Amino acid sequence: MPKISLKGQKMPESPIRKLVPYAEIAKKKGHKVYHLNIGQPDIKTPDVALNAVKNADIKVLEYSHSAGFESYRTKLSAYYKSHGLPIDVADIIITTGGSEALLFAMGSTMDVDDEIIIPEPFYANYNGFSTASGVKVVPVISTIDEGFALPPIAAFEKLITPKTKAILICNPGNPTGYLYSKEEILQLAEIVKKHDLFLIADEVYREFIYDENEKHFSVMNVPGLEENAIMIDSVSKRYSMCGARIGCIVSKNKEVMATAMKFAQARLSPPTYAQIASEAALDTPQSYFDDVIEEYKDRRDTLIAELQKIEGVKVATPKGAFYCIAQLPVKNADNFAQWLLESYDNNKETVMVAPAAGFYSTPNVGLNEVRIAYVLKKDDLIRSVAILKDALEVYNKK
Amino acid sequence: MPKISLKGQKMPESPIRKLVPYAEIAKKKGHKVYHLNIGQPDIKTPDVALNAVKNADIKVLEYSHSAGFESYRTKLSAYYKSHGLPIDVADIIITTGGSEALLFAMGSTMDVDDEIIIPEPFYANYNGFSTASGVKVVPVISTIDEGFALPPIAAFEKLITPKTKAILICNPGNPTGYLYSKEEILQLAEIVKKHDLFLIADEVYREFIYDENEKHFSVMNVPGLEENAIMIDSVSKRYSMCGARIGCIVSKNKEVMATAMKFAQARLSPPTYAQIASEAALDTPQSYFDDVIEEYKDRRDTLIAELQKIEGVKVATPKGAFYCIAQLPVKNADNFAQWLLESYDNNKETVMVAPAAGFYSTPNVGLNEVRIAYVLKKDDLIRSVAILKDALEVYNKK
Ligand SMILES: Cc1ncc(COP(=O)(O)O)c(C=O)c1O
Ligand SMILES: Cc1ncc(COP(=O)(O)O)c(C=O)c1O
Repeated sequence: MPKISLKGQKMPESPIRKLVPYAEIAKKKGHKVYHLNIGQPDIKTPDVALNAVKNADIKVLEYSHSAGFESYRTKLSAYYKSHGLPIDVADIIITTGGSEALLFAMGSTMDVDDEIIIPEPFYANYNGFSTASGVKVVPVISTIDEGFALPPIAAFEKLITPKTKAILICNPGNPTGYLYSKEEILQLAEIVKKHDLFLIADEVYREFIYDENEKHFSVMNVPGLEENAIMIDSVSKRYSMCGARIGCIVSKNKEVMATAMKFAQARLSPPTYAQIASEAALDTPQSYFDDVIEEYKDRRDTLIAELQKIEGVKVATPKGAFYCIAQLPVKNADNFAQWLLESYDNNKETVMVAPAAGFYSTPNVGLNEVRIAYVLKKDDLIRSVAILKDALEVYNKK
Repeated sequence: MPKISLKGQKMPESPIRKLVPYAEIAKKKGHKVYHLNIGQPDIKTPDVALNAVKNADIKVLEYSHSAGFESYRTKLSAYYKSHGLPIDVADIIITTGGSEALLFAMGSTMDVDDEIIIPEPFYANYNGFSTASGVKVVPVISTIDEGFALPPIAAFEKLITPKTKAILICNPGNPTGYLYSKEEILQLAEIVKKHDLFLIADEVYREFIYDENEKHFSVMNVPGLEENAIMIDSVSKRYSMCGARIGCIVSKNKEVMATAMKFAQARLSPPTYAQIASEAALDTPQSYFDDVIEEYKDRRDTLIAELQKIEGVKVATPKGAFYCIAQLPVKNADNFAQWLLESYDNNKETVMVAPAAGFYSTPNVGLNEVRIAYVLKKDDLIRSVAILKDALEVYNKK
């Protein structure tokens, strides 16, 4: 029998999905499962996007340009500019989700055995894309005690080797909810320039910021960082259209863009329907975002307030995105998460959380932490945390 | 300035697209360009697929299962079975085009510096996917004089090394139009079993066969090949919905599927709208395919008959797909193709062809060949070949 690749063997399983069979068991028992584990928002997709697809007059569903519709890129550039990001049409390649943009960014900048430094905990699929690209992830630990702030620059410098090609950040962060300050971004800019590295910034949650005095500061706004900065973006969360599968890779570095374009050409084009929806989504009225942000802010405040009432739970208040990391009074959150689904119920209801260990690449870190996504309605969040509280009591009395 | 990767430098440019700037020049001069260079059919997408999207009642455009809609996979399995292919739901992962299926197949079975044997000329993007995966393409030459039949098995065996992991075939072939016989597939099956290799069969043109006494024979139909066979499929050509970006990877090898699934999870899900269209497309009435095949058969017969009238042109009659390779009475088809766009016109019209050298990975082979796609209406094909004939005369008199 022919053998699968070592690369394939090393590909990580999704930490969020590995509890799925247990959730299915719980559901088969008739238990309701509150999903605090996933990044799929329940927010309505803007009508303007959905209607554009409904009304599209398509006879032949054709390949588009490999870089995406020219009309979409033009409008997207205008959108960025109106949001203070100096991004031209030529700086954009439309991708199949932010996921593909990450793959193109890695493929264009890194070879096998090259190293990428990523503050952890980080979006688990960075591991998958790195493994697929043969790239080694070098984590730098950020801690719940510091609210997941940027680790000191000295911690980065200690990790830089001749193999280091890039630093990857997620801003605001999944799973931490941390929003890097302008000062932190400038510190990173300095270090990548000094060591001739790329700074890849995953900014797919850019709009999801909940404090009026906090402002997102993009890597595209750092003067002099043009050759180093690569921005990853996506429509998935911004317009609650994760299923579209549209994102983009953005850079002013012409060589990076020409290279990413070759990867883009090999796979022909991003999905056409989804581009129609994404282009139209740019006309989403501001009121939509105001409502969404208010809704998430309310959810965040509720979630954090409720969590803080539980003894032994520590949580870093997220400033953005829609996740938080919570430290629980358990030894092993993995076992606890499985137990929640397999052996526990509160009035035939339980919750599903994502054990945070999967978001760290350093072994044995974050073992007592979980990621909670606040993508549920406020009442469901309150009920979920109440269940969590009761479950922790039962679990720790076992 | 940070450097792009060696991998990125090695990524090939699309041979089909590199003449694009010259086509733009021709169009700016007001010349009409007949596009014989692209694989984008002009055939109407089935209404049943387009209407399914129009009528879809979507509130939140969500991620789907990473393997694709369960309902779609179930229906697709039934479709395959009704076409004599014993493919179960568990054997299918829905991908973002056949393109992504090829990437998953390579990633799951091959490591950096592993080798894949591919009969050439071959679909140019196999080079891109191999480069992206760090895999070395080892070509085995098939020739126009043999009508691009399978090279003798001895030619394969000579190329097998300890690094060889797979043989990749395209059946029917782009760019050759060649359809492998059952005997040829069985020969390949024997050799991959003997050497413990995977046999990856790109069967995206399976339905496009133009002779009643020719029948497609799939790698999924070879008894005993279950652990070795990986099939690549796509809705792009079958339903003329290239812009959907839906395909699938199919195998009975559980390890391959479990591994491909990890790649699938990392990128979350295939596009949702496109899956709706693809699932509905399975209800396309047989009359649609009958019409399409009749149309392509007519185009093929017309194209080949017209080409054979030109002195010095040699062409292997394609049995399937919608391409053929034609040998032209020129030294360098690349120069000729550029000249057609840049310096020639016939009554303000010209043609664009794809130089075939880009479909070979052996240097200096196929230099006097072009790939012609018969994706234009019959009258346009006749006119295109007339232009080609005149152009060859003018070019060779220069
Ligand atoms: C931080 C981050 N980056 C990228 C992605 C990829 O999203 P998509 O491929 O849907 O754009 C996600 C999805 O959850 C994410 O959380
Ligand atoms: C032989 C072959 N395989 C695969 C593909 C990829 O097609 P898609 O990604 O649209 O399914 C093509 C497209 O032209 C092709 O010709």
